[in-house]
Amino acid sequence: MTPGRDSERPRAFQDHYPDDVAHCFGCGRLNPHGHQLKSYWDGEETVARFTPEPHHTAIPGYVYGGLIASLIDCHGTGTAAAVAARHAGIEPEAEPGSIPFPRFVTAALEVTYVAPTPLGPELTLRGRVEQSTERKVTTEITVSAGDTVTARGRVVAVRMPEHLLGT
Amino acid sequence: MTPGRDSERPRAFQDHYPDDVAHCFGCGRLNPHGHQLKSYWDGEETVARFTPEPHHTAIPGYVYGGLIASLIDCHGTGTAAAVAARHAGIEPEAEPGSIPFPRFVTAALEVTYVAPTPLGPELTLRGRVEQSTERKVTTEITVSAGDTVTARGRVVAVRMPEHLLGT
Repeated sequence: MTPGRDSERPRAFQDHYPDDVAHCFGCGRLNPHGHQLKSYWDGEETVARFTPEPHHTAIPGYVYGGLIASLIDCHGTGTAAAVAARHAGIEPEAEPGSIPFPRFVTAALEVTYVAPTPLGPELTLRGRVEQSTERKVTTEITVSAGDTVTARGRVVAVRMPEHLLGT
Repeated sequence: MTPGRDSERPRAFQDHYPDDVAHCFGCGRLNPHGHQLKSYWDGEETVARFTPEPHHTAIPGYVYGGLIASLIDCHGTGTAAAVAARHAGIEPEAEPGSIPFPRFVTAALEVTYVAPTPLGPELTLRGRVEQSTERKVTTEITVSAGDTVTARGRVVAVRMPEHLLGT
């Protein structure tokens, strides 16, 4: 166990994003205004949990579809990064900064809203890899409230171009 | 001209959403925390303009894809409502509350990010109707920064079910 580490919290994929690309409103740990979504492995799937704020309304009582799309987007790019890392033998339990964790961006996003998402309970996102190459990873994501899947998404994520990494 | 009306501002589609379904985080005029997107006719197209906040970051210098998806979503449902209204002979210049403006929700959303969207300038969304029936309207939306189209979206919007209208 690493000294000084909060051993109760497993490391999220987003904990490994390099500092200069860790400001995403949806999942960047360095964006204090954002959602700071955290994604983890759960066997061969990935999981993230998020509880919307009361103002994340579509119509009263239901979650805003734009937030759902945003969470799917960030869980998809996070999953893509973790898949590419795993292919390279890198697991998120490593010390942040000690490993070259990849960073992916979204090329395309599809969301199907299969049922209204109730506003209040914690939502669970689950990701599965549909297809992956060195440069491109496609994931399927579900969003659930309790046992009910309320949205299904597909994220095509591509490795972040070098000139955007700023390194 | 209606007395007391700000004659400088044309009426947006969202100005007509009934009060009990006007809380959408993306476009509801009654959500003080939200984006309050406003959509208008521009000939046979629809247009909305939005300037992201500095914290709406993807990576430094670029707009968060989740925000782009959200704006496309709300401009798509707004366009769907306006199309259905126009079919019924209703134009948004009417006095809000005086006309039964329809309300649509998103069934499916697709976004293709064709270029990074610079953070700073006002963005322009343009909508075109691809297909419309009484119950379902599909729109194609572009997002531009200056003359550059940075994202393309497709929104399948369906008329809001009566039981969600709360009326």
